[in-house]
Amino acid sequence: MPAERIRDHVGAGATTVAAHRRRLRADRARQLADLLRRLLLRGGFPDGVLPHEAAIGADYGASRNTVRQALDLLRAEGLVERLPGVGTIVVAEKYEHGLDRLMGLAETLHEHGPVTNEVRTVGTVSAPAPVAERLGLPDSAEVLHIERLRRLGGLPLSFDVSYLPLDIGAPLLGADLENTDVFRLLESMTGQPLGHADITLEAVSADVHSAAVLGVPRGAAVLMLDRLTHLADGRPVDVEFIRFRGDRIRMSGRMPRFP
Amino acid sequence: MPAERIRDHVGAGATTVAAHRRRLRADRARQLADLLRRLLLRGGFPDGVLPHEAAIGADYGASRNTVRQALDLLRAEGLVERLPGVGTIVVAEKYEHGLDRLMGLAETLHEHGPVTNEVRTVGTVSAPAPVAERLGLPDSAEVLHIERLRRLGGLPLSFDVSYLPLDIGAPLLGADLENTDVFRLLESMTGQPLGHADITLEAVSADVHSAAVLGVPRGAAVLMLDRLTHLADGRPVDVEFIRFRGDRIRMSGRMPRFP
Repeated sequence: MPAERIRDHVGAGATTVAAHRRRLRADRARQLADLLRRLLLRGGFPDGVLPHEAAIGADYGASRNTVRQALDLLRAEGLVERLPGVGTIVVAEKYEHGLDRLMGLAETLHEHGPVTNEVRTVGTVSAPAPVAERLGLPDSAEVLHIERLRRLGGLPLSFDVSYLPLDIGAPLLGADLENTDVFRLLESMTGQPLGHADITLEAVSADVHSAAVLGVPRGAAVLMLDRLTHLADGRPVDVEFIRFRGDRIRMSGRMPRFP
Repeated sequence: MPAERIRDHVGAGATTVAAHRRRLRADRARQLADLLRRLLLRGGFPDGVLPHEAAIGADYGASRNTVRQALDLLRAEGLVERLPGVGTIVVAEKYEHGLDRLMGLAETLHEHGPVTNEVRTVGTVSAPAPVAERLGLPDSAEVLHIERLRRLGGLPLSFDVSYLPLDIGAPLLGADLENTDVFRLLESMTGQPLGHADITLEAVSADVHSAAVLGVPRGAAVLMLDRLTHLADGRPVDVEFIRFRGDRIRMSGRMPRFP
């Protein structure tokens, strides 16, 4: 990224030349980090080792300082580590969760191994008003409430809170929630496939309690999914608040200009 | 949420009773915060003031301590503030960006007011290898490189870095990038609509530089969008790395079980 050809609109006039240079280097480091992040999350370094700093610099037309700063950004995200004598190695896998099709976590990640669920809470509660409303239930109706910490290969991926109508949810009390997606159980128990889900994705900072459950530092970036799942017949049956570890899950899909 | 009816699987046996109670209260506070967050982001408190703590407690069957802890979580996210003598007020609007249809930011948010763009950089650079590859260009081909800080009503929403092939992008050099979506410019300049985009969403912590640009604390949660946009004829024309402020943008859509 040869910087001399970049025309700069906010310009050095407003600041000192040194501050301007720092800003340009920070911009270039971030741009380089974005490119390397994409490569490493997609297995672009098959042996798990990044090229030497000098080689990265040559490939991307970046100075040694910029390369170092870019690698520092990736290290701060928990994606790479530096091993003396070895170089910079990829330490994290960030699993892809599809946005195009509604799937449970175990279903989504089956190629990577089994998902296990630590069921922290399961039982009936009186539905909070916003939950009752979304499920089309009367105020304070009984609902099934489930909290699960979900892991792949022992590593926490997400912390899920679900609310289900009792007529739909009660059979789940005897089911193997530790090893089975709720989606799969719902389909086998109702005898009909799921239809669709309305979702909202947000980036939030982990509160101290969620951070402890997910095994991340307080304030770590969390991909939060609010999902209302419907059966094929249109009935809403599952309100969920899911916190994915930001360093372990990404969501990918295709968006059409004219659906 | 009457806790006494919640059957607990990890149980008090493993910890002290006091620690167990703290965990249950933290769980309930988070659950309550999730419900209130959803309401407030959807305008559920039309006058912008939340009910008194006691009223929230009564509505949700939660103790005063749990309500306070839930409001503290929302305050930490920058969504509410406490005003002495007034109560808890909503201070943030979190705009909805659709996942179902490919749209530019100004197009998406037109009901909320005009989006203005601070063009920080615009110029040609030699395409980094991963950019060239995604755009179907030869290595080191010249591409147009644009960096914009995008605002709504003066408030920073996102920090966008784009790379476009030069034959497509060059006309943008003379265009009103300050006030127009690149998507709209692309459609008017190529004379064809956009087709689709391949997207990846991640939650990341803001590095110090991005945080300064976006006006958020270092480490704040950022919703990062990696997007490759194609024209209707299938040609990939726009590689973007977009950092949305996590406290200002959420992404919503509908996912079918069987597309």
